[in-house]
Amino acid sequence: MTKSSNIMRLALLQLMHCNDKVANVQNAASKIESAVKEHRPRLIVLPEWFNAPFRSYSETIPDGYTSQHLSNLARKHQVYIVGGTIPELGENDAVYNTCTVWSPTGDLVAKHRKLHLFDVDVKGGIRFKESEMLCAGNDFTIIDIDGHKIGIGICYDIRFEEMARLYRNAGCEMIIYPAVFNMTTGPLHWELVQRSRANDNQLFVVTTSQARDTNANYVSYGHSMVVNPWAMVQQSASEGEETVVADIDFSEVEQVRQQIPIFGQRRIDLYATENKSKKRE
Amino acid sequence: MTKSSNIMRLALLQLMHCNDKVANVQNAASKIESAVKEHRPRLIVLPEWFNAPFRSYSETIPDGYTSQHLSNLARKHQVYIVGGTIPELGENDAVYNTCTVWSPTGDLVAKHRKLHLFDVDVKGGIRFKESEMLCAGNDFTIIDIDGHKIGIGICYDIRFEEMARLYRNAGCEMIIYPAVFNMTTGPLHWELVQRSRANDNQLFVVTTSQARDTNANYVSYGHSMVVNPWAMVQQSASEGEETVVADIDFSEVEQVRQQIPIFGQRRIDLYATENKSKKRE
Repeated sequence: MTKSSNIMRLALLQLMHCNDKVANVQNAASKIESAVKEHRPRLIVLPEWFNAPFRSYSETIPDGYTSQHLSNLARKHQVYIVGGTIPELGENDAVYNTCTVWSPTGDLVAKHRKLHLFDVDVKGGIRFKESEMLCAGNDFTIIDIDGHKIGIGICYDIRFEEMARLYRNAGCEMIIYPAVFNMTTGPLHWELVQRSRANDNQLFVVTTSQARDTNANYVSYGHSMVVNPWAMVQQSASEGEETVVADIDFSEVEQVRQQIPIFGQRRIDLYATENKSKKRE
Repeated sequence: MTKSSNIMRLALLQLMHCNDKVANVQNAASKIESAVKEHRPRLIVLPEWFNAPFRSYSETIPDGYTSQHLSNLARKHQVYIVGGTIPELGENDAVYNTCTVWSPTGDLVAKHRKLHLFDVDVKGGIRFKESEMLCAGNDFTIIDIDGHKIGIGICYDIRFEEMARLYRNAGCEMIIYPAVFNMTTGPLHWELVQRSRANDNQLFVVTTSQARDTNANYVSYGHSMVVNPWAMVQQSASEGEETVVADIDFSEVEQVRQQIPIFGQRRIDLYATENKSKKRE
């Protein structure tokens, strides 16, 4: 598709989360409807684990409960939906942290399984071993909306700059990361990693987080964000439930790439980031 | 050499610059002497272009005027010196933007020729074409001080994350960039790129800038800086002539690498940063 417009309106839904999958999906549906009525976005982004992060809630894609609701919502509202993440029940009983993307026709455009599982142990901060519960994906995921290539990553994926570099090299103008940082890594690195990816690759970085629930076992940092290709924070949510409406001006990508032309100045005679995945993007 | 100590004291000399090479070298010598007497650093870092950025001042290395003075100063004061950069007269009359490193015995440990020349044209900001005057180097440069591997880059090199990645993969615990950002790119990205490299590679990033001279054609941003492996600004200079004394605790490198173990979590089955240079580090 050709680039039909340089402006794309996004709505980032920073949703509160509970341990009732149906209630979480209903909350998302309600907030999607409000966002569409009030703001007419082209693309809506939900948070990582917006329905529930547990194996007991896992479903197959695209025929599971949450998938079907997201498909219907995309079709009903004629909007693209980056469906945050859900626990996907995959082959051999494996469970993945998976992001689905739905088109305005209700079709599944892509699914991205988190590539880098969150295993950290910060002294006096947070200990978490996502790999005890989940399997990691093996594919990069790039979608095309209105002629704009958009890479998909999930939360911890954002720390791995080689993944973003491959998306940039493949022509992406934006990377979307549904993500839930916590009260340790959030203050330390949430804004920094987004600005880093935006600056090195001269593209938009978009994150959608869960809202903060201080009673949860894992307390979300919040602060869903849009960073522009100059690496400046264009918009940012606070901690609570909130919808961020952002008009993405893709001409800014071209501007910074012309004015600080680092992509063509890379010394590809001296180094290269290689894509070793089977499914080349 | 084994790691004899986890603490290394650095002195970053943010020097004012004029168009008199001899005066610039004398100023550096004077500030080196003061820093040694007052602080006993193990390593002193000078700014990019601390003597003069022009072909007419270019010299061969290590027998040129500035090199000989830096060698003598290192030996006299029993200190390592990362000698900022000077215009090096190289093969076939080519001029390079080159950083020399001197040991406490006065020996040339390494020289690094800037790999990425600064060619930008920021609307309403700065236009600069370093490649009109200079040639680029073709080698990565890693030194070893007291068992700690340190990568060397120069200014614009810092924007290219694949270079820093290769240094990290080779075991570096610090990268030093003599660098002079300007009043456009400085406020935009100076701190960000340092924190980006430090965070992605979990190492110290050290920059030494020229002091700001608002009458110069190219006005330096200043703010020589030390960023620690948690990507926090450990120390920062202001704009004027200033010596930053920093105690580098290399145990912090190991701490962050253990607690957020992204290096071993990289999906090297899916991507890799390849070193294509002839001189492999």
